[in-house]
Amino acid sequence: MSRSILMLPGDGIGPEIVAEAEKVLHKVNEKFSLGLHFQSALVGGAAIEECDTPLPDDTLDKARKADAILLGAVGGPQWDSRPMASRPEKGLLGLRSNLELFANLRPAILYPQLASASSLKPEVVSGLDIMIVRELTGGIYFGQPRGVRELENGERQGYNTYAYTESEIRRIGRVAFEAAQQRGKKLCSVDKANVLEVTVLWREIMEDLRREYPDVELSHMYVDNAAMQLVRAPKQFDVIVTGNMFGDILSDEAAMLTGSIGMLPSASLNSEKQGMYEPCHGSAPDIAGQGIANPLATILSGAMMLRYSLGEEKAAEAIEAAVSKVLDQGLRTADIMSSEGRKVSTREMGDAVLAAL
Amino acid sequence: MSRSILMLPGDGIGPEIVAEAEKVLHKVNEKFSLGLHFQSALVGGAAIEECDTPLPDDTLDKARKADAILLGAVGGPQWDSRPMASRPEKGLLGLRSNLELFANLRPAILYPQLASASSLKPEVVSGLDIMIVRELTGGIYFGQPRGVRELENGERQGYNTYAYTESEIRRIGRVAFEAAQQRGKKLCSVDKANVLEVTVLWREIMEDLRREYPDVELSHMYVDNAAMQLVRAPKQFDVIVTGNMFGDILSDEAAMLTGSIGMLPSASLNSEKQGMYEPCHGSAPDIAGQGIANPLATILSGAMMLRYSLGEEKAAEAIEAAVSKVLDQGLRTADIMSSEGRKVSTREMGDAVLAAL
Ligand SMILES: CC(C)[C@H](C(=O)O)[C@@H](O)C(=O)O
Ligand SMILES: CC(C)[C@H](C(=O)O)[C@@H](O)C(=O)O
Repeated sequence: MSRSILMLPGDGIGPEIVAEAEKVLHKVNEKFSLGLHFQSALVGGAAIEECDTPLPDDTLDKARKADAILLGAVGGPQWDSRPMASRPEKGLLGLRSNLELFANLRPAILYPQLASASSLKPEVVSGLDIMIVRELTGGIYFGQPRGVRELENGERQGYNTYAYTESEIRRIGRVAFEAAQQRGKKLCSVDKANVLEVTVLWREIMEDLRREYPDVELSHMYVDNAAMQLVRAPKQFDVIVTGNMFGDILSDEAAMLTGSIGMLPSASLNSEKQGMYEPCHGSAPDIAGQGIANPLATILSGAMMLRYSLGEEKAAEAIEAAVSKVLDQGLRTADIMSSEGRKVSTREMGDAVLAAL
Repeated sequence: MSRSILMLPGDGIGPEIVAEAEKVLHKVNEKFSLGLHFQSALVGGAAIEECDTPLPDDTLDKARKADAILLGAVGGPQWDSRPMASRPEKGLLGLRSNLELFANLRPAILYPQLASASSLKPEVVSGLDIMIVRELTGGIYFGQPRGVRELENGERQGYNTYAYTESEIRRIGRVAFEAAQQRGKKLCSVDKANVLEVTVLWREIMEDLRREYPDVELSHMYVDNAAMQLVRAPKQFDVIVTGNMFGDILSDEAAMLTGSIGMLPSASLNSEKQGMYEPCHGSAPDIAGQGIANPLATILSGAMMLRYSLGEEKAAEAIEAAVSKVLDQGLRTADIMSSEGRKVSTREMGDAVLAAL
């Protein structure tokens, strides 16, 4: 069996962290005889520089053919003044929509070894393990019409459309209910159904699905309350399901509860379980090229890839165990450094994971 | 000089907490000879029960004529299944839009006496004092078109419109720059300008305004990052300005950083400084009628009212000092109770503030 993996380093710290993840994937490939083949391509700002577009045809082509994709990160200040349609982010959004990667899984897990990195009190976050299921190819990110128009009085008005169809809601709902079945059997659907019609439909469809998953306890929460509850008592949550934009906001908030966003992987899946995997953190242009970025979120994204897209649970667990081991050894990149740790570079961290495998 | 104040108790704990705030306002009215006259009216679920509409004409009439409005809270589970147009929330939204209360000021302040109530580490939140300026009469809450439609394939689609005109952005921008001038001179504008066109216009107008307020340091942040930074290092912020929905989410998150949302007031102002004042917390139907709700956020909303709409700074400060005093005395309602405090009821708390005046 031969499977192809597409590596998309992207911008900022992307290339550095993807290089470490690639080393790790090569190693498990050998060790577990996975038959993985690796390719790479340009996306985001890196693609803009080479090909004048954030998502070259060649990249999209390779992405379609790949069994799974590992992405670093995209974006940086040098492209911030470009028009919306040709920004690095469009590369990422284009991959998500073209491959229909509608299901974004974002775990927020507190590593016991890094508990002190959280800005929250230990009793509030110890043992934290939430899974946020974010809809990723619909909602206001992709809604039409959108743009800036001139009104009759000569003023400009910016506008976007927040829309979801029943079937879009249903398919992400199913992913979330199934995730809950495999975890703590609690699902909280987040909306703003007291104000926004689109989320009234969202709530209705989630209610519909409840009957198909009688073993899952479904609740609903308004997004403003959810933003509060994540701060107040995050351990009340098991799986959270929500739309693209609320999911963007809440998953980043939840990730930061752990204090170690440099540790958190994510998966974006389509209905064939083809997937794109990437760290939750961004391209961090301020520290790019210094060799100090934390590669663990990307390495753990590789583990998620093995689990969700390739069905290689053992290899995934081996990577996760290796990461846990280097943390036990006290190795820390700058972002997770504390008084007791030993500070290491991006490459040293990657090497340590290799050695632990 | 005679000024009229409209009291809108609303639903849930609303009537209980507004009653205490009214006692306090009567007292300062006498003590400082403010010439305030009080009326009251129905809004939200309470109005639905009596008049079959969440915002009766009589209420809107009185609201237009009032110099300022003090609101408790609206909403409750018994009205949750009503169609959008006749839910309690429409009473609140209708007041905001009819009176053009576009500027929502939401302070997130940590009371030193209640520092231990925060779920964050003391060093992260001690001394926290952020002002969130939320646009309140535009954006996706009010955007047209909206609703649920049937598509050609027979599926339903829910949709809302997120729109802002230049002038809407400019007027809330000015309020925020002016607030920053009177505080720490730092303003952070929150948007999602890497994805949403409407917030590209938002960012452009905020940049425009920068020239008029050279003493204010303006920065921009994406909303997902802002949700993270509030958890990671909230004291980096002075004033935050953002649209209606992002403001809803971020102001609740920021409020919860203090651990004492029962303490936080808010103001919603129009361009004539007419204003509606309300606690940041909701109607808390689960504890309504038990006499245990915290009236301090509503009492402090009364202080904000005296300051912003009536120009009575001394009276406002007197209320704030009285609240601080009862906290020093160790009086605590259930929501802010800790081991050292003395637990009091809603009414006892109100009486204590009266006595401290
Ligand atoms: C880069 C940006 C377009 C992206 C998003 O908002 O989806 C990022 O914030 C994320 O969450 O993956
Ligand atoms: C009750 C609801 C409509 C309201 C809002 O979302 O604006 C509330 O959450 C608030 O923040 O004042």
